[in-house]
Amino acid sequence: MRHPGAPSPETLELLKHEFGADLLTAPKELDARSRDDSGVRLPPAAVLLARSTAQVARLLSLANERLFAVVPRGAGTGLAGGCLAETGGVVLDLSAMNRILSIDCDSVTATVEPGVLTGALRSAAKDKGLFYPPDPASLETSTIGGNAATNAGGPACVKYGTTRDYVLGLTAVLPTGEVVRTGTATRKGVVGYDLTRLLVGSEGTLGVITQLTLKLLPHPQTQRCLAAVFPGLDAAMGAVIAVMTRGHLPAAMEFLDARCLKLVGDLLPEHVRARLSGGGEALALMECDGSPDEAARGVAAIEDICRELGALAILPAPDEAAREAVWAVRRSVSTRIHEACAVYVPEDIAVPIGRIAHMVAALPEVERRFGVDIFAFGHAGDGNIHLNLTSPDEAARPRVEAAAEDCVRLALALGGTMSGEHGVGLAKRAMLPLEIEPVSLRVQRGIKGLLDPKNILNPGKLFPDDAEEVGHGA
Amino acid sequence: MRHPGAPSPETLELLKHEFGADLLTAPKELDARSRDDSGVRLPPAAVLLARSTAQVARLLSLANERLFAVVPRGAGTGLAGGCLAETGGVVLDLSAMNRILSIDCDSVTATVEPGVLTGALRSAAKDKGLFYPPDPASLETSTIGGNAATNAGGPACVKYGTTRDYVLGLTAVLPTGEVVRTGTATRKGVVGYDLTRLLVGSEGTLGVITQLTLKLLPHPQTQRCLAAVFPGLDAAMGAVIAVMTRGHLPAAMEFLDARCLKLVGDLLPEHVRARLSGGGEALALMECDGSPDEAARGVAAIEDICRELGALAILPAPDEAAREAVWAVRRSVSTRIHEACAVYVPEDIAVPIGRIAHMVAALPEVERRFGVDIFAFGHAGDGNIHLNLTSPDEAARPRVEAAAEDCVRLALALGGTMSGEHGVGLAKRAMLPLEIEPVSLRVQRGIKGLLDPKNILNPGKLFPDDAEEVGHGA
Repeated sequence: MRHPGAPSPETLELLKHEFGADLLTAPKELDARSRDDSGVRLPPAAVLLARSTAQVARLLSLANERLFAVVPRGAGTGLAGGCLAETGGVVLDLSAMNRILSIDCDSVTATVEPGVLTGALRSAAKDKGLFYPPDPASLETSTIGGNAATNAGGPACVKYGTTRDYVLGLTAVLPTGEVVRTGTATRKGVVGYDLTRLLVGSEGTLGVITQLTLKLLPHPQTQRCLAAVFPGLDAAMGAVIAVMTRGHLPAAMEFLDARCLKLVGDLLPEHVRARLSGGGEALALMECDGSPDEAARGVAAIEDICRELGALAILPAPDEAAREAVWAVRRSVSTRIHEACAVYVPEDIAVPIGRIAHMVAALPEVERRFGVDIFAFGHAGDGNIHLNLTSPDEAARPRVEAAAEDCVRLALALGGTMSGEHGVGLAKRAMLPLEIEPVSLRVQRGIKGLLDPKNILNPGKLFPDDAEEVGHGA
Repeated sequence: MRHPGAPSPETLELLKHEFGADLLTAPKELDARSRDDSGVRLPPAAVLLARSTAQVARLLSLANERLFAVVPRGAGTGLAGGCLAETGGVVLDLSAMNRILSIDCDSVTATVEPGVLTGALRSAAKDKGLFYPPDPASLETSTIGGNAATNAGGPACVKYGTTRDYVLGLTAVLPTGEVVRTGTATRKGVVGYDLTRLLVGSEGTLGVITQLTLKLLPHPQTQRCLAAVFPGLDAAMGAVIAVMTRGHLPAAMEFLDARCLKLVGDLLPEHVRARLSGGGEALALMECDGSPDEAARGVAAIEDICRELGALAILPAPDEAAREAVWAVRRSVSTRIHEACAVYVPEDIAVPIGRIAHMVAALPEVERRFGVDIFAFGHAGDGNIHLNLTSPDEAARPRVEAAAEDCVRLALALGGTMSGEHGVGLAKRAMLPLEIEPVSLRVQRGIKGLLDPKNILNPGKLFPDDAEEVGHGA
């Protein structure tokens, strides 16, 4: 299928006239919007640095009239190429629409523009005693609009869910240029179809979000964590599951496998490191929040469960500094893999929690078969495993990519999904039919066609091109 | 618009042949499916008591071929007429598909058929230490499929959200008779459009849910509540908001207005009743859950806040029996209104939490203007107000209904929605354009047309008929 691409030279002139200084065509501006964190580079023909919903609507109207592609973009922190102008169209940069319009303490909601950084919203809410829970790893640099477009989540998912659970209502511009308001400003609402959640997670293919009304929560008074080293991931996951089935709901439950532990073990204190050489093969990090007393009791209960289920060593974090040190171990994994390996393919499959250990146990066979190294870590509480497939040898990239596809097939066979956080974008569209069955795919394409009859909004994303589609058999 | 209706006599014979004893046509069977809790009575031509996804698919295929209406039904506890065969079609009764297929402790999920009673699921989960939080008032008699179709919620929404927050994935039969699986079996998933949440809350107009995978949580070890009497709803809502902005997240936050309090005040203990005569005009009921210690501390903190913000009396509930007694006061409100009033129209508008007191303060003027009595109570923590508009005089029904529409307009003017729980169905479809703007309505009708091109699934529900539509101006 041929997708709309760059505007013609005449149309580009028209856009310059229409949008004046907000239409950017300088090489350095185009270059800055030609990449995201996927590593792919695809320069656009122009950039509209949007200032208002009306401007967004005008651009999309013109795109329909004159048939060029429009690709919405937040901060460009995505890992799937979803914000890249593959066909050379106009990038619609929403980062300048970055006002927090209100933090409403009486209604415990926030209304914001899409370019607000997620971390900035979290800070502004916290200043008023309120909490915006979704915590993608990129939260200090990614925008709330991008988070909504990709339904971003992070460690907090186990207790608090993901972005879609906090979006009450939206103002969005449909691909036709029409402005629509969806949802409500209230915490409950059951009137009509849920267009809000149809737009959330649609990766900028069904509409451009220009305003969001978000649910907030009371801010937990404190957070306390602990880490525990186990003889294997089976035992660590046993503890994770026991914590949940015995009435505790931590605010985060993370894990590192043996390979990750080896990579970052030097960051752990001596008494924990000693246990690693004595057979420590997995680390679980769990966090409780609430009143100081409640968080401390939660962590104490978790410590008991970890010891009962075979923890070799416990690393408590009695204060905020110690907590930061524990989280730093978890966070340093990605960086160190990145530094250590010439080839590095990040996958983010998710499986049912009870299958995490099965999934990780199957990895050595994949490593052996493809001659790659696989690091597994991530969110034990929601089944989302960051698999980092690596090789020291740049020439091994095709093998690493083949191994990644194999891991996706493994996750699907275990009842999982190919992506828990990163989304489809360009990166996974060829694999989509492995997970989404033909009837569903037809319905989804139908919805795209209904909302974007001229296919001008983020064309080619999400759906497989016939040419590149991966076969359905496993 | 003319909608499909009853099957022809020949088609009915074909259905009898096809489905044998599962196709019911006896008058008492039809009568049992001719009503819900809306008070409307609309008998179907026949009932299919479905046993399997395959039967559901076959019925919908035949409906497409032979153009008759199919109306899915759970337990018939809805208040909006959503499960009634208005055009005399075939009711698709899913109550016999009522198996709990699994409660998976390792993955903290459940897989169930749609006819499982919500209360039965909650009990089965609790037996394994797990928790299914959504708690519509009907939970002991309504089905999980009906709860999903209407995105049911209850008092737990303030902390735990509503049904849509727990549905991870579905098996559904599309109106065309095709079977589709949506979503995932995992807690995170961002692959493709969110068809799961498009079906949830669509009131049986876009597909028939035949299996659900649900997220569960750890079961809280205990629940503790307290009630507080305030001199007015302003003060009560001030306490509700203070609780949330000071870092507490109760598992329920309910309120009764002055009229409700008068109606059920005799159920309260003497020391609380004494305060009512001394100016008590509103009651707040708040509940905390967690470990026994945590719940007790939460309730103690709330008590302090209530006293600080002017509570006239506190009714603690130190044990489970006392807790039940406090909740009985809240639950008896509906029953007593029902018993006391000849005309009784239940509305369930929702407004931002900070506007609840404004909404209730506007009611005396509506009462005066229309000559009706309005009782207001409900969910302070999520803004969902059950307005019961009443009159002792049956002849006043048109005035009561006009007052109800006035209340909807008031709620919308305060940034609210016409329904927080009950949905649209037949009851509110004429008012839909008051809330849903034309662009959104066009998109929603487009989605209906895409999925149900012959309009055979629950035809006429949700969307206004041109003839009966209420004018847009206020």
